[in-house]
Amino acid sequence: MEYAVAADGDVIDMVSGTPDWEAPEALRAGLKRYADGDSGTFQYPPSEGLLGLQEAIAERRGVDIERVVITNGAGEANYLGMATALKRFSGDEMVMADPVYPYYHKRTEMLDGSPRFVESDSDGTLDPDAVRSVVGDETAAIVINSPNNPTGGVYGRETKRELVELAEKYDALLLSDEVYDRFVYADGAFETALSFDSEHVAVTNSFSKSMAITGFRVGYGVFPPDLVDAIRTRHMLVNVTSSRPTQRAVLDALEETPEAYYEQNPVMLEERARTFCAALDRAGAEYTRPQGGFYVMARFDGYPGTLENTERLIDEAGVAGMPGNAFGETRTDWLRFALVTPRVTEAADRLAAYFS
Amino acid sequence: MEYAVAADGDVIDMVSGTPDWEAPEALRAGLKRYADGDSGTFQYPPSEGLLGLQEAIAERRGVDIERVVITNGAGEANYLGMATALKRFSGDEMVMADPVYPYYHKRTEMLDGSPRFVESDSDGTLDPDAVRSVVGDETAAIVINSPNNPTGGVYGRETKRELVELAEKYDALLLSDEVYDRFVYADGAFETALSFDSEHVAVTNSFSKSMAITGFRVGYGVFPPDLVDAIRTRHMLVNVTSSRPTQRAVLDALEETPEAYYEQNPVMLEERARTFCAALDRAGAEYTRPQGGFYVMARFDGYPGTLENTERLIDEAGVAGMPGNAFGETRTDWLRFALVTPRVTEAADRLAAYFS
Repeated sequence: MEYAVAADGDVIDMVSGTPDWEAPEALRAGLKRYADGDSGTFQYPPSEGLLGLQEAIAERRGVDIERVVITNGAGEANYLGMATALKRFSGDEMVMADPVYPYYHKRTEMLDGSPRFVESDSDGTLDPDAVRSVVGDETAAIVINSPNNPTGGVYGRETKRELVELAEKYDALLLSDEVYDRFVYADGAFETALSFDSEHVAVTNSFSKSMAITGFRVGYGVFPPDLVDAIRTRHMLVNVTSSRPTQRAVLDALEETPEAYYEQNPVMLEERARTFCAALDRAGAEYTRPQGGFYVMARFDGYPGTLENTERLIDEAGVAGMPGNAFGETRTDWLRFALVTPRVTEAADRLAAYFS
Repeated sequence: MEYAVAADGDVIDMVSGTPDWEAPEALRAGLKRYADGDSGTFQYPPSEGLLGLQEAIAERRGVDIERVVITNGAGEANYLGMATALKRFSGDEMVMADPVYPYYHKRTEMLDGSPRFVESDSDGTLDPDAVRSVVGDETAAIVINSPNNPTGGVYGRETKRELVELAEKYDALLLSDEVYDRFVYADGAFETALSFDSEHVAVTNSFSKSMAITGFRVGYGVFPPDLVDAIRTRHMLVNVTSSRPTQRAVLDALEETPEAYYEQNPVMLEERARTFCAALDRAGAEYTRPQGGFYVMARFDGYPGTLENTERLIDEAGVAGMPGNAFGETRTDWLRFALVTPRVTEAADRLAAYFS
């Protein structure tokens, strides 16, 4: 990313995963209303989050409010789930897909756990049988992310059901990071891990992507009843509580934003993905066609996705992606391109021209 | 606190430490301006914080900007300092005063460290010789808080100098939590631990108290050069980054708020402390006269500060404090009263009447 910013000439940024569309209007209005409020409302919210926001989430997710903890983004919710799984369950292994969202294995290492990688299928999803071959008594948690970053794969209901069963069988946590749940493309269906009534399931999410506010840091976790007390305590001892103005603005936006706001964005992203993949076809690239989310992974023949080649692509084609080795071991030849730029068509044409 | 809220009749809340005065006007204006801004400004700030805020803090504290990490309140900064000290230094002990700010020992336990308590002097400060008698190779950090919560003691320059030397001698961290630095009363002087040019000093702070915004969660740490990379990594893996709207509003307030705003609050608190202590004299109580901060600790003869007696005081005197056993072992007979209510005079009269 730094290289792209520093580069001469016009570079199209397909590195970062920050939405390029507008936040809900009600969110801006909510923040302004808050700024004019009584100074008492500027003080600590409850540690587990504003009651109204907890309630709204519990109702939408169909879970008991006690299970909901508002966090500093899904990042903190994932941290809380992973740290607590490592303390509560017997093993020290975290099972996760490769290609991997880098925070998962880096966080595991920080927590003195051991990442255990399972190669994703070519369509970017995870085969439960592959997971079955590595889980065991050493497993503290299985961490999944669907729609997936970086592959764009969307895990189906049957996959999630089998993963829940594995978590139950080996007394581990299935930690399902669902931050892209609002970005499944038209022919897919999203199945939350909360559909399975299991005390081994935690679901994390945030409003960062769905409301285009990655800087607001409003996320949450729905945790198993057995773990939620330990998780609330850890949340309090790490962060005391999350930021209140942003919780208030998100609650206003949640109540007032029409469904149409959320529906338009996956349609736009799917259209961008179609355009981009068509160019990849012209470039003769191998790629995973995304079923949801913000990203496309691609491999160009004779052009492995090293950092050096990523920088060369910036200089010579004017397109910035991410090198595959940022995402583990299995796709080091690949590059990841983020679709969250209005210039996808132009970037696609540049790549097609460069590689043909 | 729950008991006080649920109680019949009129109860004066001297439990919570949330400021009862107004936030700076520029902060409200900054938040509104942010709400109207480009949606690009709603996305991730740098993990270590908005550059402008980092710069403003580095300049005010006279430190290299690389050492400054913006955190989700001083709570997270303390967590980062303590977790990293336990990883980097050989011991697992955290030395801290008793009476203790409860987050310090609870957080130590969460991190699998061992709290090591040193009894505070009767004036609420810490005797470096008492610290010297417990520090050693097992010490990972010495955690101090001045002006102190709960005693109101203000540690002098000589005390801090000796504590820095002890941290250096035993290769440990002196973690100095200075969130009440703007609330030293008239006859005292505040000495930051940053006055000592030492690679063993970390200072944490926040805008929660100084700007009356405990719910905004904008704090920071100034960490030793040797530790700051590990701390930035941990901050990223736990929280990704802190909330951006509140950082922006705090930066605006920092630039535009006159010094008079900050100067009036310790004057008001000292006046409240004087009123309250005069009533304690009438009640025949023992107490620590605060030199700064938000709190007064007191002991009433024949009325130990148990939870039961704290609740009885709510019911019979209409004043809510905190029981002493919330703050460790040495002052279980005491109660803590917070001065951040406009009704201090009334509360003082109630206590004087009740106990005389």
